[in-house]
Amino acid sequence: MVSCVFPGSFDPVTKGHADLIFRAARLFDHVTVAVLVNIRKSGCIRIEKRAELLRKACNDLPNVSVECWSGLLADYMKEKGEKIVLRGLRSGAEAEQEIMSSAVNKMLNEDIETFFLSTNPAYSGISSSAVREIVAFGGDIRSLVPEGLAEEIKSVLSK
Amino acid sequence: MVSCVFPGSFDPVTKGHADLIFRAARLFDHVTVAVLVNIRKSGCIRIEKRAELLRKACNDLPNVSVECWSGLLADYMKEKGEKIVLRGLRSGAEAEQEIMSSAVNKMLNEDIETFFLSTNPAYSGISSSAVREIVAFGGDIRSLVPEGLAEEIKSVLSK
Amino acid sequence: MVSCVFPGSFDPVTKGHADLIFRAARLFDHVTVAVLVNIRKSGCIRIEKRAELLRKACNDLPNVSVECWSGLLADYMKEKGEKIVLRGLRSGAEAEQEIMSSAVNKMLNEDIETFFLSTNPAYSGISSSAVREIVAFGGDIRSLVPEGLAEEIKSVLSK
Amino acid sequence: MVSCVFPGSFDPVTKGHADLIFRAARLFDHVTVAVLVNIRKSGCIRIEKRAELLRKACNDLPNVSVECWSGLLADYMKEKGEKIVLRGLRSGAEAEQEIMSSAVNKMLNEDIETFFLSTNPAYSGISSSAVREIVAFGGDIRSLVPEGLAEEIKSVLSK
Amino acid sequence: MVSCVFPGSFDPVTKGHADLIFRAARLFDHVTVAVLVNIRKSGCIRIEKRAELLRKACNDLPNVSVECWSGLLADYMKEKGEKIVLRGLRSGAEAEQEIMSSAVNKMLNEDIETFFLSTNPAYSGISSSAVREIVAFGGDIRSLVPEGLAEEIKSVLSK
Amino acid sequence: MVSCVFPGSFDPVTKGHADLIFRAARLFDHVTVAVLVNIRKSGCIRIEKRAELLRKACNDLPNVSVECWSGLLADYMKEKGEKIVLRGLRSGAEAEQEIMSSAVNKMLNEDIETFFLSTNPAYSGISSSAVREIVAFGGDIRSLVPEGLAEEIKSVLSK
Repeated sequence: MVSCVFPGSFDPVTKGHADLIFRAARLFDHVTVAVLVNIRKSGCIRIEKRAELLRKACNDLPNVSVECWSGLLADYMKEKGEKIVLRGLRSGAEAEQEIMSSAVNKMLNEDIETFFLSTNPAYSGISSSAVREIVAFGGDIRSLVPEGLAEEIKSVLSK
Repeated sequence: MVSCVFPGSFDPVTKGHADLIFRAARLFDHVTVAVLVNIRKSGCIRIEKRAELLRKACNDLPNVSVECWSGLLADYMKEKGEKIVLRGLRSGAEAEQEIMSSAVNKMLNEDIETFFLSTNPAYSGISSSAVREIVAFGGDIRSLVPEGLAEEIKSVLSK
Repeated sequence: MVSCVFPGSFDPVTKGHADLIFRAARLFDHVTVAVLVNIRKSGCIRIEKRAELLRKACNDLPNVSVECWSGLLADYMKEKGEKIVLRGLRSGAEAEQEIMSSAVNKMLNEDIETFFLSTNPAYSGISSSAVREIVAFGGDIRSLVPEGLAEEIKSVLSK
Repeated sequence: MVSCVFPGSFDPVTKGHADLIFRAARLFDHVTVAVLVNIRKSGCIRIEKRAELLRKACNDLPNVSVECWSGLLADYMKEKGEKIVLRGLRSGAEAEQEIMSSAVNKMLNEDIETFFLSTNPAYSGISSSAVREIVAFGGDIRSLVPEGLAEEIKSVLSK
Repeated sequence: MVSCVFPGSFDPVTKGHADLIFRAARLFDHVTVAVLVNIRKSGCIRIEKRAELLRKACNDLPNVSVECWSGLLADYMKEKGEKIVLRGLRSGAEAEQEIMSSAVNKMLNEDIETFFLSTNPAYSGISSSAVREIVAFGGDIRSLVPEGLAEEIKSVLSK
Repeated sequence: MVSCVFPGSFDPVTKGHADLIFRAARLFDHVTVAVLVNIRKSGCIRIEKRAELLRKACNDLPNVSVECWSGLLADYMKEKGEKIVLRGLRSGAEAEQEIMSSAVNKMLNEDIETFFLSTNPAYSGISSSAVREIVAFGGDIRSLVPEGLAEEIKSVLSK
């Protein structure tokens, strides 16, 4: 069985995230979406709520699970016995950041391998921070977030 | 008539911004400089003051106007009936960010086209944050900001 | 009247090129597509044929013309009295190359301004060389070239 | 069963390639290394010889096979019923190129997903062309190619 | 005598920093490590403590000194009569930032030349912020910081 | 004494190269400009002529010498007992290439350190290939090559 972990802050989940999860679910036996607490930035949405939104976005996928983790990704992988990290890639500059992060993860846990999957070009401009900014100014996020979640994300971010 | 909008935070205006505005003013029938409120970072200079400094920098240009906007660029373009966004480009990494932003703007307002104009190489290292940092340490910003504005920018940033 | 020149080797024209031309034609009063001879690489398709394919791709656009030029872009601009060069931008690394080229063009002809327009993300992977490679291996190029031109491009490249 | 294809020109195989193959072989049930004919550049080593060198480099890996293919990667994947392409990633600029290539592959064959695995930083400077250049000038390639293959690669390239 | 200044925030010193200092010390007659106060981010470790950690990391190097400076790098260079700034380079995106910063420094002090030294690839993923994050989650930083300093850095960051 | 080697193909020398040599000559006790034969591309100007042009460009610099070398840079450094390689840096993408090359050089000769010096922004678009292209089309290269050498370079390239 080949499984992978797709980590991120998902604050909130976007159409780009959902697309990656759906594509990964077709290729791997199991995909765990891991909502990580980022100590550098506090985040806008409560972490449990982010996981709930992700679960709704992945509703029809039997081989996807969503978990929260407050700690290092390297430790999470060790505890769960996972080896493959999956990350989306939107651009070259992002690739450099990701290559560096994966190198540090490998220093902390030699067994980790990071796979990058390039974002669907149609979604390559989308980011969680763009969603938050658009909501803050009362804009329409339906083209940026998974189908059916726009209203809920809007209301959560507006609190 | 072909007009364009040059949006930014201009906190404060730099020689690089002014150069782009002058070059755009020679090419387009009209250029609107739009000072945008950025909800992600609060900014150092009051937005009205930023516009005032921009107006002084563009003093001799009859086809340039300066406006403030607290909202999404995509909505501003719609309201004003503008189609062309103009952005400066200093480097490849910046280009990636800008390409992503323009893709999101197009999602929100399909009529928007973003034109990138490469920064004059002589000014390519200049940024508003560099100006702020130099003022904070008492340095000389005359080579970084539009002629005649160094003292006023210094005094505004020192408050 | 604001006009621009969209230069390139167009060997052959792709869906990405055509998209840029259509978008530019909506914004400028006139767009000249300039097929340039590149002395560094000899090219696969005769330059007149490339122009013919471009004309077919832009069939319905009254304000677009296609010309060939064997010389420097800077000289072409001077001779035609044009000031604005338009270039497509697919990525950050490409942006760096383009920023450098535009700097050299400005050294040769101070009046030139280069505008970059980001490629439609859906077409960002497409390039003339990808088209040529796919034809060489007998692949299907219909999703990569302007509608109705696949057969002709295939036959021209197969000679 | 989750399998993948690692395509390339391998002209010749390097330590970087071998490292990626070994790491992939630990994660996937099966890895096919596909030596592709590149119509754009003729290559230095005969394609069959490249495959032979790769087989020696992967000697102890029971779940790795090496094949040659003269055609499009997209067609190879279809014919073999494979879905996952694996590519090494050494830097951001390379990532951009790879993201574009993978977008074209997806246009030709919608089922293909490309996974990028970042190169071991210790090998990130190594490339087949660097190996060829060093051999041309009589340098020592032992630190750049898989163990035990330096002499054979040297002699093949010196012909 | 050829001397250089290696500036940074060193919050805290990493194995990557130490490697650059050791390599520079072999090449230059004297290396001054300058701990700069960054007005944009307040920093985690007191600046005097950062200098102390750096001194411990460079213990055996007679031609290296460590100093603190609350001001512009350009002014520091002038006051000390130094001309060469040394900066580490981990990636292309970082290079762009550094090229811009060095251009601004040259505007403020024409005599400054910035030399970039590429980071040892084995350490290219390491950054001070990665160290801080790992400590925050109780991880092991021994592979990221200079030998013998892990415990002290951990305790300083945990306050 | 701290000396360095500035290697390149210099086909032909540009204003950018000359600027780097002059700046390096102010900082190092001695600078050797090494004209390297590139086996991958044959070059346009005879290697001895390239050196002659470089010598004219550096006429007034007593601590600069120009040499030709047909071999690996790593071997040249060893033979001459030199440790520091100097390379110009124009952009982030170029930085990535250079970081990779310097990593390979270090594999071949552990003593080599590569210093990157960022190109004067005013010259950042200039390259030898741009000079060759402009000459091929009869353009004016005076703003791209060292003072007084335009005619000679033109005549050498026109042969």
